[in-house]
Amino acid sequence: MSKGRIAGVIGLGSMGMGAACSLVAAGVETWGTDVRAESVADFVAHGGKAAASPAELASKVDALLILVVNAAQTESVLFGETGAVKHMKEGAVVVASSTVPASYAHELEGRLTEHGLLMVDAPVSGGAGKAATGEITVMGSGRPEAFEAADFLLNAIAAKLYRLGDQAGPGSTVKTINQLLAGIHIAAAAEAMALGIRAGVTPADLFEVISNSAGASWMFNNRVPHILDGDYAPLSAVNIFVKDLGIVLETGKELTFPLPLSAAAHQQFLSAAAAGLGTEDDSAVIKVFQKLAGIDLPESKSD
Amino acid sequence: MSKGRIAGVIGLGSMGMGAACSLVAAGVETWGTDVRAESVADFVAHGGKAAASPAELASKVDALLILVVNAAQTESVLFGETGAVKHMKEGAVVVASSTVPASYAHELEGRLTEHGLLMVDAPVSGGAGKAATGEITVMGSGRPEAFEAADFLLNAIAAKLYRLGDQAGPGSTVKTINQLLAGIHIAAAAEAMALGIRAGVTPADLFEVISNSAGASWMFNNRVPHILDGDYAPLSAVNIFVKDLGIVLETGKELTFPLPLSAAAHQQFLSAAAAGLGTEDDSAVIKVFQKLAGIDLPESKSD
Repeated sequence: MSKGRIAGVIGLGSMGMGAACSLVAAGVETWGTDVRAESVADFVAHGGKAAASPAELASKVDALLILVVNAAQTESVLFGETGAVKHMKEGAVVVASSTVPASYAHELEGRLTEHGLLMVDAPVSGGAGKAATGEITVMGSGRPEAFEAADFLLNAIAAKLYRLGDQAGPGSTVKTINQLLAGIHIAAAAEAMALGIRAGVTPADLFEVISNSAGASWMFNNRVPHILDGDYAPLSAVNIFVKDLGIVLETGKELTFPLPLSAAAHQQFLSAAAAGLGTEDDSAVIKVFQKLAGIDLPESKSD
Repeated sequence: MSKGRIAGVIGLGSMGMGAACSLVAAGVETWGTDVRAESVADFVAHGGKAAASPAELASKVDALLILVVNAAQTESVLFGETGAVKHMKEGAVVVASSTVPASYAHELEGRLTEHGLLMVDAPVSGGAGKAATGEITVMGSGRPEAFEAADFLLNAIAAKLYRLGDQAGPGSTVKTINQLLAGIHIAAAAEAMALGIRAGVTPADLFEVISNSAGASWMFNNRVPHILDGDYAPLSAVNIFVKDLGIVLETGKELTFPLPLSAAAHQQFLSAAAAGLGTEDDSAVIKVFQKLAGIDLPESKSD
């Protein structure tokens, strides 16, 4: 499938590393770079090739996957001092997979076109586990020739590839809306469990009933076990939802569109961050209620 | 299992009728009553026995299922002028299945005890379809002897019976919290779909991606198809969540406990009711965004 085409990955965090290793596992020559030298060394140990900067990596690759934190970092690795864009081959494709506002993705496509480059707006979901096994979901949009140029890369990293439109933008819109719901559902799960605990219901009973009832959500079923275990080691941190619900609200502002539940959920994550919980697991948003009202949360089993 | 024990059902709406017919189907002699004579006639056509009032029905039954709208109606059918309580057999059991505040359920158990009666706090979920097939979920709590007295009735109507405590209260608390999440999730689904439509994403694509992603909820997956079909015929109405999120907020007030997402969701259902949508399907809460911002919702396929 790859016909000798070469991939690059900028950003070797949990998602990027998983995707990069999936490319290596699929037999694709893959170059990686990250500001953290130890991540690059780790990738080399998994069979990847190391580049010192986006600029150094850019000239080698046919498709460039970007999995950094946000739009500012995407901007920096593409257009910064050691950025990739001015070194990339004519007709190469940028697969932009960080969570960014749709307006940024749309504008980025135009700027890359001016440089003779293609782009797939390709935010991802599925978490580090799915990334490691090449089974993430890609919420993609872009021109057909961009998808064609990126197919060898997308096939190696994704179990499911949605094509949501023929230009950049819709992919990031759908990802933004997924985060809108995910964030509200985590904050709602915390509100529900906190009220139940205050009312004297056994937390494990409450989880058992709700997770099998109409009140269930993917996030309720996934995150409440962290609360029951008293385990707030971050799989995905509170600060991620401070950021992602921020993108949601920014999108609402751009479109002059009210989002009352998103705004309420964002305030809960901001409250958690204000209380010093920003780097804990996002389920720690329930500790806002503990700080306010002194509820007895389940304690860690390892304490 | 029923050993000749006799059941009564007060409230032959969609849930009560389903439960009453399940009792008949299980071979239990079952008396029914409702303020709507046509519902009683319908029940008789399904093999039930008709009573003109709760008072008339009360003396005949060993277990009495109450499936009316709220606490006020529960109060009326038990203690009103033609109420059941003063006519019931010593040791009979009241199975109180309407959605009521836990504080009311707890207090009711005490009052019924004074009359020599048992009580199971037994709110239900599953909808009219599950009620008709005897497969609802019961979120039960109460004294062991109350469960024992009610077993023939509960076995006939429920696929799943949770026992959440040895007194009335926890059953209604868990139901209240299920409604907290269900209500938030419907309002969030509406907010998500409305934003997507305003942003220009194809609604069916958005549903397809989210319903298979971390943003999914039982309610998103169940209610958004109503929006995609433009079908707001009420399976469960907006007004139900005006009421049930009202109980949620009342519970928070009783416990001095803040519920910011519940409050925001309640306002959305109130907004929908204010716009004249109270008797439409609860998914019609999305029309609040249509009224405000003129989004193009999918039209009914039958128009």
